[in-house]
Amino acid sequence: MTANDNRSGVHLPDRVAVVNVGLKLFGDAVRAQGAAVVDVDWRIPAGGNAGLIAALTLCHGSFAARIDEANAEVCRRLDAAAPMLTGIATAREVVPGMGDRTLLHPGPPLAWEEFCDPLRRSVHAAVMAEGWAETPEAAGELVAAGGVDLQPANGHATVGPMATVLGPSSPVFVVENPQGANRAFAGINQGPGAAPWFGVETPDAVARVLLLREVRSVLEPAIAAEGPIDVFSLASQGLQMGDDAHMRTQACTNLLVRALLPGLMAHEGPGRVEVARFLSTNHLLFLNIVMAAAKATSDWAAQVPGASIVTGMARNGTTFGVKVAGIDRWFTAPAPDVGQALFHPGYGPADGAPDIGDSAVLETLGLGGAAAAASPAVATFLGGKMAGAVAATRAMESICASRSGRFRIPYLDFSGSPIGIDLRRVVGLEVTPRITTGILDATQGRGQVGAGVATAPLEAFQRALHGLVEALGPVASLKT
Amino acid sequence: MTANDNRSGVHLPDRVAVVNVGLKLFGDAVRAQGAAVVDVDWRIPAGGNAGLIAALTLCHGSFAARIDEANAEVCRRLDAAAPMLTGIATAREVVPGMGDRTLLHPGPPLAWEEFCDPLRRSVHAAVMAEGWAETPEAAGELVAAGGVDLQPANGHATVGPMATVLGPSSPVFVVENPQGANRAFAGINQGPGAAPWFGVETPDAVARVLLLREVRSVLEPAIAAEGPIDVFSLASQGLQMGDDAHMRTQACTNLLVRALLPGLMAHEGPGRVEVARFLSTNHLLFLNIVMAAAKATSDWAAQVPGASIVTGMARNGTTFGVKVAGIDRWFTAPAPDVGQALFHPGYGPADGAPDIGDSAVLETLGLGGAAAAASPAVATFLGGKMAGAVAATRAMESICASRSGRFRIPYLDFSGSPIGIDLRRVVGLEVTPRITTGILDATQGRGQVGAGVATAPLEAFQRALHGLVEALGPVASLKT
Repeated sequence: MTANDNRSGVHLPDRVAVVNVGLKLFGDAVRAQGAAVVDVDWRIPAGGNAGLIAALTLCHGSFAARIDEANAEVCRRLDAAAPMLTGIATAREVVPGMGDRTLLHPGPPLAWEEFCDPLRRSVHAAVMAEGWAETPEAAGELVAAGGVDLQPANGHATVGPMATVLGPSSPVFVVENPQGANRAFAGINQGPGAAPWFGVETPDAVARVLLLREVRSVLEPAIAAEGPIDVFSLASQGLQMGDDAHMRTQACTNLLVRALLPGLMAHEGPGRVEVARFLSTNHLLFLNIVMAAAKATSDWAAQVPGASIVTGMARNGTTFGVKVAGIDRWFTAPAPDVGQALFHPGYGPADGAPDIGDSAVLETLGLGGAAAAASPAVATFLGGKMAGAVAATRAMESICASRSGRFRIPYLDFSGSPIGIDLRRVVGLEVTPRITTGILDATQGRGQVGAGVATAPLEAFQRALHGLVEALGPVASLKT
Repeated sequence: MTANDNRSGVHLPDRVAVVNVGLKLFGDAVRAQGAAVVDVDWRIPAGGNAGLIAALTLCHGSFAARIDEANAEVCRRLDAAAPMLTGIATAREVVPGMGDRTLLHPGPPLAWEEFCDPLRRSVHAAVMAEGWAETPEAAGELVAAGGVDLQPANGHATVGPMATVLGPSSPVFVVENPQGANRAFAGINQGPGAAPWFGVETPDAVARVLLLREVRSVLEPAIAAEGPIDVFSLASQGLQMGDDAHMRTQACTNLLVRALLPGLMAHEGPGRVEVARFLSTNHLLFLNIVMAAAKATSDWAAQVPGASIVTGMARNGTTFGVKVAGIDRWFTAPAPDVGQALFHPGYGPADGAPDIGDSAVLETLGLGGAAAAASPAVATFLGGKMAGAVAATRAMESICASRSGRFRIPYLDFSGSPIGIDLRRVVGLEVTPRITTGILDATQGRGQVGAGVATAPLEAFQRALHGLVEALGPVASLKT
């Protein structure tokens, strides 16, 4: 429309430039007429949910100063901890609260009846590896009869990727966090192919668990000779070498193997070549170690009360749980499917189990999805160009309160990756963390069928925000 | 200026938009008056040199079809060769033309009097390691008296980085190129610190040369057990992990060590832990191997006559040499200083020797400077942001005839790195290859003092273009 077309006689300007706030549709309509439009991506906070808006109002209002102060301390801890890999021990000797019949599983607590198929199979394999039963069927019966104490690993300062289940005889990495005077544990990564952490319960998979004892016999003296190992220093180098340090840990694993090489080569035991072959083909050896480091870090950060920062995310394949600093409780929602995924040949979305594993703890402090833009390998799952990986990192930036001082992303001019997921931003923007992850066979125990990027369920964070407001009291709860 | 200001009465348009061809200065002057300007970066070809323009005219005219056809075959070979690391042998047993008193040095042939200081020192160390003399002074006297046969390694299917000098007893990697039925050799990388390849001639440096025999005793059976190793496959993976595969080969080295791990751990010899420590701290182990692979590849490509593609670049610290496919001759110019450099603490440009080593062969087929945009580590030498590294790759693209099908750069949406440096483009545009490299102490034998990116001297390429025109005859030579 120009001034000449204006038949009403009102004088309109020759040119129109529009700032369109909110729905892009309105801007598009103006743009279609040839006028310049600047779109402002504004949305109604929390989707307009009155209860959530009330909670957000408190968190940005009366509680804001307390929260901001607490958040700063949480973020400081997330970036200041420098956990060290100091050794390997048997779970029953070091993991707090580990009984003779305890099995540790990933994610929030769950009744046996609710365990997903791959996690059940992993439990079966762990029962067999412990020598408590000889077949998957017998193992299942033993568990159903209450003969095993199933516990969430997270409650025992321990974490496991995918469907990892640890028994009392499992060797575990010991990672010490000197800054927080605490420590955390993770099993030795079980490697590719037929392994229980991928939901496989075959004799090969059980044998793999037993092989880890041999692996320990080689790794333990090597760590003693060459360690302690600064875990996040390796992760930081890995980000310069294409790792996101979650889905892809190949560079970090190689750095670790090379650092341990003199200790590994000093070994004289008979099984050392078999172990070497396992180490040589397991790109994810570092995954469990960096998860333990992240767990030690986030457990320390979680001691700060009154913050709105997420210090734990974990999935058991049935539920997705969120923890908030200062609140010792999981806020849960159903585990999501892995949305942006590539499947192995012959598999598709229908074969994939929901998101599973404790590895999402990495996303709380700048690794995994937060560091997607560091990883060409992750980009292949996000459209095949680096722009897709950058978008994942940018999404995390939009909901994070701070930046890592040590995890830097070359592709983004070496800026620090986002740390400190702020519940207020997640719920207000309705943007949830992106988590790089593997995908397991949902029903048939065939192992890993793909990998991709999962989007955490919003509902868990909404519940956590209400939980935070309750904890902050005395203002009355404002549940919807 | 607007129409209203036009006092001469001639009607000028209200708006001016300018396309400025050539000197940016003219465009800037228009831009300063607020008008839109598009700059076309056009320059007089070959700096306006009549002889070179005549040579270029022939190469783009009468000879163009022949050259284009030959170039296509050269580029095909540069991208098709898949050289395999098959083993390690003693130089005198495998290197063609290696006599009992031969020492191989980097770069074009050179009289002893013209050797630069670091290369002299490396020769001294090699003489001592061979047991021909006991002190640097005695070694120097022996060489000056003609007691040693100094030969350019390149003439013996061999390459060495920086100031590497190889004697008949040196262990060398054997790299076979099945596609060309040829092979090439390189010594074992001498590692960091006090080592002759950095121009150090101390007892420690001589001991390092002897340590390489121990290293061989561990590596040789490991390669036999786990090899052959596809060298460019590792390089290709390394580019996804932050290596340019020249200045930085850490990811490739780690991949190699991990691939060899079972073979390494099978070793039972007494020196294996010392060797492991050497391997664990030598980020450049892969450098010499990938150089040998590049040499085997470029030697094969160089068998194609009539092309304008560069198949060799090498420096001896005094001269910089260029080889063109089909012409068995070095075209030389004085070796340049390393222009874009970072120096170790306490050192500066005045301490740096001119560019040295055979490693620039990597730049002929898409690695090193051509792959700078793959490497955050290289970016630190080019302004500290990835944009600087991208500019180096773009400069190489502007003078290359093709792209690698296997060496891909994540930062540039996985496009292939430039291969096939075309003399016509180099001379016409006056843009020369960028070479990532280390810098040695110029005069005092203190080793490496920095690293950076060297720009190859244009004069060598201009001479090569004249050489090409001569070789293409019967048109008379058109020297300036």
